[in-house]
Order: sequence, then C-alpha cells, then structure tokens
Amino acid sequence: MNNTTSISKEEYKEAMETLGSKLAVLQLKVRDLKIPVMIVCEGFSAAGKGTLISKVLYPLDPRYFNVYTMNKVNEDAVMRPYLWKYWTRTPARGRITIIDKSWHRSILPENISALQLKENEIKYFYEDVNLFEKQLTDDGTVIIKLFLHITKEEQKKRLKELEKTSTTKWRVNKYDIKQNEQYGIYQKYYDEMIEKTDNENAEWNIINAEDKKSATISAFTIIIEKLEAAIAHYEAKEKVDMVKVKPEYYAKYDVLSKCDVNKDIEQKEYKNKLNAYQKRISELGYELYLKRKSVVIVYEGWDAAGKGGNIKRLTEELDPRGYEVVPVAAPTSEELAHHYLWRFWNKMPKDGHMTIFDRSWYGRVMVERLEGFCSKEEWNRAYKEINNMEFNLANHGTIVLKFWLHIDQDEQLARFKSRQEDPLKQYKITAEDWRNREKWDDYEIVVNEMIYKTNKPYAPWHIIEANSKKYARIKVLEYVIQELEKNLR
Amino acid sequence: MNNTTSISKEEYKEAMETLGSKLAVLQLKVRDLKIPVMIVCEGFSAAGKGTLISKVLYPLDPRYFNVYTMNKVNEDAVMRPYLWKYWTRTPARGRITIIDKSWHRSILPENISALQLKENEIKYFYEDVNLFEKQLTDDGTVIIKLFLHITKEEQKKRLKELEKTSTTKWRVNKYDIKQNEQYGIYQKYYDEMIEKTDNENAEWNIINAEDKKSATISAFTIIIEKLEAAIAHYEAKEKVDMVKVKPEYYAKYDVLSKCDVNKDIEQKEYKNKLNAYQKRISELGYELYLKRKSVVIVYEGWDAAGKGGNIKRLTEELDPRGYEVVPVAAPTSEELAHHYLWRFWNKMPKDGHMTIFDRSWYGRVMVERLEGFCSKEEWNRAYKEINNMEFNLANHGTIVLKFWLHIDQDEQLARFKSRQEDPLKQYKITAEDWRNREKWDDYEIVVNEMIYKTNKPYAPWHIIEANSKKYARIKVLEYVIQELEKNLR
Repeated sequence: MNNTTSISKEEYKEAMETLGSKLAVLQLKVRDLKIPVMIVCEGFSAAGKGTLISKVLYPLDPRYFNVYTMNKVNEDAVMRPYLWKYWTRTPARGRITIIDKSWHRSILPENISALQLKENEIKYFYEDVNLFEKQLTDDGTVIIKLFLHITKEEQKKRLKELEKTSTTKWRVNKYDIKQNEQYGIYQKYYDEMIEKTDNENAEWNIINAEDKKSATISAFTIIIEKLEAAIAHYEAKEKVDMVKVKPEYYAKYDVLSKCDVNKDIEQKEYKNKLNAYQKRISELGYELYLKRKSVVIVYEGWDAAGKGGNIKRLTEELDPRGYEVVPVAAPTSEELAHHYLWRFWNKMPKDGHMTIFDRSWYGRVMVERLEGFCSKEEWNRAYKEINNMEFNLANHGTIVLKFWLHIDQDEQLARFKSRQEDPLKQYKITAEDWRNREKWDDYEIVVNEMIYKTNKPYAPWHIIEANSKKYARIKVLEYVIQELEKNLR
Repeated sequence: MNNTTSISKEEYKEAMETLGSKLAVLQLKVRDLKIPVMIVCEGFSAAGKGTLISKVLYPLDPRYFNVYTMNKVNEDAVMRPYLWKYWTRTPARGRITIIDKSWHRSILPENISALQLKENEIKYFYEDVNLFEKQLTDDGTVIIKLFLHITKEEQKKRLKELEKTSTTKWRVNKYDIKQNEQYGIYQKYYDEMIEKTDNENAEWNIINAEDKKSATISAFTIIIEKLEAAIAHYEAKEKVDMVKVKPEYYAKYDVLSKCDVNKDIEQKEYKNKLNAYQKRISELGYELYLKRKSVVIVYEGWDAAGKGGNIKRLTEELDPRGYEVVPVAAPTSEELAHHYLWRFWNKMPKDGHMTIFDRSWYGRVMVERLEGFCSKEEWNRAYKEINNMEFNLANHGTIVLKFWLHIDQDEQLARFKSRQEDPLKQYKITAEDWRNREKWDDYEIVVNEMIYKTNKPYAPWHIIEANSKKYARIKVLEYVIQELEKNLR
C-alpha cells in the first residue's frame, strides 16, 4: 500500500507540473521507440478512477493514446470470449492505451451474468488472465496496473456526495450501491484478484485513494518509473538475431510420415457422400445458429494441397450469413504493429457463426520461423500462446478444428506444373511456391513439431491424406460433421 | 420485368452449369483486375432472396466474397448515419460483396423506427442513396441491383408454407405478415424506390420471382452480363494520366489572403479564457453525451501551424471516454484498396461522442491533388463527395466543424528552424515538410478553392489566424463552444 501523507495545494501543484512534463517527454520516447503501453485502472467504485485517468491524460498528446472503458457490455463482446474485447483493443507499438475498468473485473458477480461467462471461462479465469498478460509483456507491451483503494466509509461518503448533485447523480448505479453494502465481499474478491494476478511483468500497484492529491502523485510516480524502466530496457535491448536456423529433427515429433497420402475414393461414392454430407453440414449450420455455438476451422497444408477447393466444398451448402472465409496473407503494416495474434482475434466468430481460416496463426511456427521473420524465442513461445488462444475459444464454447492437408512432393510437382499450363490457374503459382518447395524437408520438421505441440483435446489436428482431392474433401466433411454432432448433442 | 416461361428440370440443370462456370471464371477476372463488386439483393418478403444468394455463391470461391444482411439492427449502426453500415462494408478492390436486403429499405416503415432515422435523413433519403451509389460507381465499383418480385397471392402461399414446417417457421416474422396484409402499400413503396434510385450506372433489374428456376437463371444472366461489361470496360480503360498539374488561380476563390495572421492575445487574457473555455467545453461534452449528439471536428492547416497543441487544448478537460483523436497519415494498403472516404467512415463517432481528425479527407483535394496521387477527375468530383458525406453526417444530427489553421511563410520557417534545434521536436520535421514548403503558392491556390467549394452551412470552415498559437487556441475554443451551444439549444 502506497501511503502518502496529505500535502499542501502549492506542493501538489508544483509536483504535478514536474511529473506532468516528465510524462509528456516519456510519451514521445515511447512513441519513438515503438513501445506499446497499456495502463490498467482498477479499484473500488467511487475511488476516483475516471478523475485519475483524466489527470494522466492531461499532459499527453491526444493523438497517441486511446481510452477504453468496460462500462457498457455489448452483444459483440458477449458473444465472444470475454478477452476478445481486450485483445482487439491492445495498443499498436508506440501507442498508449488506458483501460478504465479492465478484464480483471469480468468475474465480479454482476459481470459474470452480464458477460454470460461460461463455466470453464470462470474456472480458468485467473490462468487465462495471466496468460493474456504474459503474452503481451513477452511481446514487449508494458502493462501498468493500478488499483485504487478506499474504505467502506469513504466510499459511502463519496457515493452520497455524487448522488446529491444533479450533474453527477447519473454516475452512481445500483452496482455501486450494492458494492458499498457488500463491501466485505468485494474486498475479498479484490484481494483474491490482486493476489492471483500479481504477475512478475505486470504487477499490481495499490494506491491509497482516500486522499485524492496523494493518490494522483502516487499514480504518476508509478507510471513514470515503469515507463523509464521500460525505455531503459528497450534502449539496452540487443538486436535479436533473426537468422534462419535449420530446424533439428526429433523422432518423437514424426506424425506426417505415418500418413498414407495416396488414399482415394471412387467417383460414385464421392458424389453420393458429397451430396449427403453437404446436406448434413447445412442442417448443422442452422443448429449451430439456433444453439449459438461458434466454430473456428483452420486450414493448413502444403502449397497446392487443395485448400481452396476443400473449403469450397465445405461451405457450398452453408447459409452464407453464417460463415466467413478469411484468407490469410502477409500481414499489413497495421497488423505488424500489433501482437501477431491480434489480427486473428479480430476475426473470431460471434456465437452461432463459423470462421474458416485459409492459413492461420500457425504461420508463426512455420513460414515465420523458417524465413527468420521472428526470433527463436518468439516462435518457441508461440506454441503455448496458440494453445492458450484455442483454449480460450474452447472454454467460451467455440468448436475449434484444424486440418493439415497432406500431399507428397511428387503430387505437388504435378499440381504446380498443371497450374502453370492452365491460364486460369497461373495466378495461383508464384516464385515463392517454388522456393518453399525447395525447403520441403525443413517444413516437414517444423510441421511435425507444430502438430505434436498443438494437438490438444480442445483443438485437435486432423491430418488429411490429400493426394486425392476428392478423398480429402470427404474426409474433412466427415470430421466436421462428427465434431459438430458431438458438440451439439 | 423479366418474364421467362417455366423450363424443364434438365434444361435448368444444364443452363445452371454453364452459367455457374461462367460466373466462376468472371470472379477470378474481377479479382485479377481488382474490380470491386457489390451485388444488391432486394425484393418482397419470401421472394427468395436468401436462396438466390446461395445459388449465386455456389460457383464462387468463398475466399473472395463477403455476404452481409440487414436483418439485425445493432446499436453501432443506429447511432450513426444509416449509410455508415454500408460504407464501412464496401468491397475492397477485387472482392465481391453481396448485400441481402440493402440500404434501399432503410425507409420502410418498420426500419424508419428501428434505425431511428432523423427527419432530414428521411427527407433527403433518395438523394443520399443515389449519391452514395454514384460515389462508388465513380470510383470503379460495379453495383448490380436485383429486385425479386412476387404477387400478393404467391407471397401469402409461400409464407404459409414456411410457417408450416418447424425448421423454416423462424424465417417468418411479424413484418413479413404485415407486408402481405399491406401488400399494396409496400408495392407502392417499392415502386417509388425503384423509380427514384434507378441510376444510370446502378440501375434496377427486376426479376419475376414467381418461378424460382427462371428467376435464378435471370439473375445469373444479369450478373454475368454486368460483370462482362465491367471487365471489358476495365480492360479497355486508358491509364489515367496522374501527372501533377500546376493549379490555376481564380480570384473568386481567394479567402486566405484576407486573413490577418498576426492577431495576438495577451498572456493573462489567454490564461483566463483558456481556463473558462475548457471548463465550458467539458460541461458541453457531458451535455453532448446526455443528448446523444455527435461531433466531428476537422483540423487542417499548414505544416507547423500548431494543430497538435491546439487539439491538446481542446481535449484537455474533456472526458476521455467521450472523444477520440484520429491522426491521419498516408493510407495503408487496405485503405488504398477502398474508396478514399472508407477509412474516414470507419472512424465516424457514435451519437454522444466526438471525433477529432488531425488532417482528414481534405487531403484528397490538397496533397493528393498536388502530388498527382489521384486524377483530375477524381479530385474534381471529391468536392461534391465530401460535401455529401458531411451533409449525411449533419442530417443524422452530427455537428461538423472544420478549422484551417493559417500561418504565413515567415512564421513557418521560424517554427521549422526551432523544431530542428529542439531534440524533443526534431521528429516533427521531415524532408517532406521542406518539400511541401517549396510548393506554398500551389497549396495556397488549392486551399482557397477547397474552402470556397466546401464551406457549407451544415459544415462551415473557420479560418484561424495562427501566427500566435495562443490566439489560435482561444479562437478554436470559442468557435467550438459557440457551435455546440447553438446545436444543443
């Protein structure tokens, strides 16, 4: 607890001027060093969160910050994992985002129902929150967490004060009153929350907010210290070596070689099954919508493995209002300025909807790893980050399915050649495809490792034998039907 | 009315196969030629819009289309001009967007209330819709509008059919029933709508949908014809010459020279007014929120005119939850793939909120014009497009204010020099600033023309004498207070 004795008006003014100009300079440094910063403002009702935030913003350049509050809960957020709202609002590098009431309060009694948290979301709440913060800090985001503390008596006094005046009355709602009445329960909740989410790189700073002036000075001092430390850290940071390293082979990761790519299906059987399965998928699509279940399907596979045609057969009979196909290409500049998972969080389906990713976040541990687009440390921790994201989705009730479309080198060569001869398909084949092909062995190693490390019960990989496009389509349809039926039971 | 006599099942199947493969090929061409396409599906309830859309999608590659329906009205859309929802969903170049129930029905009795249309939005409805379509087609978007027509009897029959089965029952809502009961009234509305929005480059195609098979064939035929025409047009299009042309001077456009940039204010008066005005702005901010009025403020002006510091003074005392400052830099690749107004529509404030643009859409008629980033035809029509967007905002109830911060060349030079000497401000000054400075005379001409052509009662320009930063800040605050008070009365 940060206790500061009350100070005079003059001392306060002077201190604030010094702190304010320091903060202004730090904001510019943060901008220039491209450090993403998240300031989290938590605390008891009427502890002065809003006022504090205004004061912090005062010396800042408004072009380089964003402020978000958790006040209103809208449908978009309720129909997705509760962290979605925060993932999609994480700051771009160089920007400061201030969160007025944060993800930490999603588990307050009133929010559990307002946000319609699922059983598993409650069960794994603290783990999820901690992993969320860890992923951001690992990626270089500075998270500064402030908790404003006031006593029950002080809170009561302030609420009464607010209610007296017509211009401030609207700021007091029934939950604020309830919180004061049940102060002890809330105190206990906050204690637990602080204890369980006091992370090494994102610890809580508890501020005694009984005296507003000292509280403000404390908050400024903390923010300045944290930013200075972060800046020193960024400036001292050695340039990470992004050299490409040949991946090493571990026998335990070998999944692909066991796959008989040549499995095939007869034309007649294909036609019959395709019709029947597509009809069934379409029915299941409606059921998903009615039961408000969402689905995420990931397509990965070798170049020319037939992802496009496979996706087409999967979606052909689906109600177009219920699904979206997201083709994943090289990230845009805006996407590069965020955590690599940010662009995928942005596309996650609402309850009742399906999103199909044609390539995905797994690029991190395949092409980005092999081409040296990220450091070893980065792709190494990506397995856990990816598992965690899929776990979040699953806990929210999303069905997560992942397909690796597997062909062999001969089949790929044949397809490349036939594409080059077909004027309508020439666009599909580029120099990069040929370059990737040369790295087949390296890819095989990293794909094996990826599947081994991210094949989880809540988000299983299905390896699809795909030398026969038809066989592969039927097999994907079968898996999708099977998993949807299981989950809709 | 497109009347086709009923055809046999075999003939239908054969026709659809031919039409389907044609459409698939056209989609790829559209993709390669980077043509944005919008297919609008309108018509009576139960006329088969949803089924038709599914059929159109069938041969298409799902990675390159999006489908949007107007079914649900959410808060985000209601609290902005009704066209916002469509502007933000216009297709990127090379993509096909299909709209199931379009902006045309915003004026249906049930939608007027659901969307909470404002008086002026109703009054100017057809004009706005036509200008919206014109802006898109002028920019190269292909708009294909289909209207599915069925008779009252047929509609009644189909609704009854749908209601009979448990799996289709949910598709019939009270408005569908009402529409059948009041068929005559809706027929009249649709007739008027079709007549008034049958635009040269986006005409209506009315399809007799009594027979589903013929209707589908008609729709495919129309879409194919339109796409083929568009492709021919794109392929034949001469490369527009983007050469930079020295702007010509017209005396009537001279606004800037009348401005006495040297107006100043004493320190004491500045301090007093700043305090008083900021306090007032903060009160007005709350009033805006309570009365659900939104505000758009545009800052334009010479490099180093003091926009940043001016914005800072304007927002300093505002509740951070109520406003956002949007710094406008060069467009990203995603933004370039859309109409140039798209990225600004994306940032428009919800009711009760304020968005401040640090530079804006006016870049189109200044830097883009002078640097040859757009053709003469494009910047020339931009005045009207911009006026139209601001008119839309104003009709929705948004307060639109525009400031030109005006300094003279000597003052700019002094500021450039002082920035270069200050290590904290060096980042603010780039080689581009010096290059722009050399084009001062050209800029003066285009700025004069811009202000002359876009200074409208619903979105007035205020020229701010800004050699004294303090004077400029006070003047902006004064204008903002004056306009907000006027609008909140």
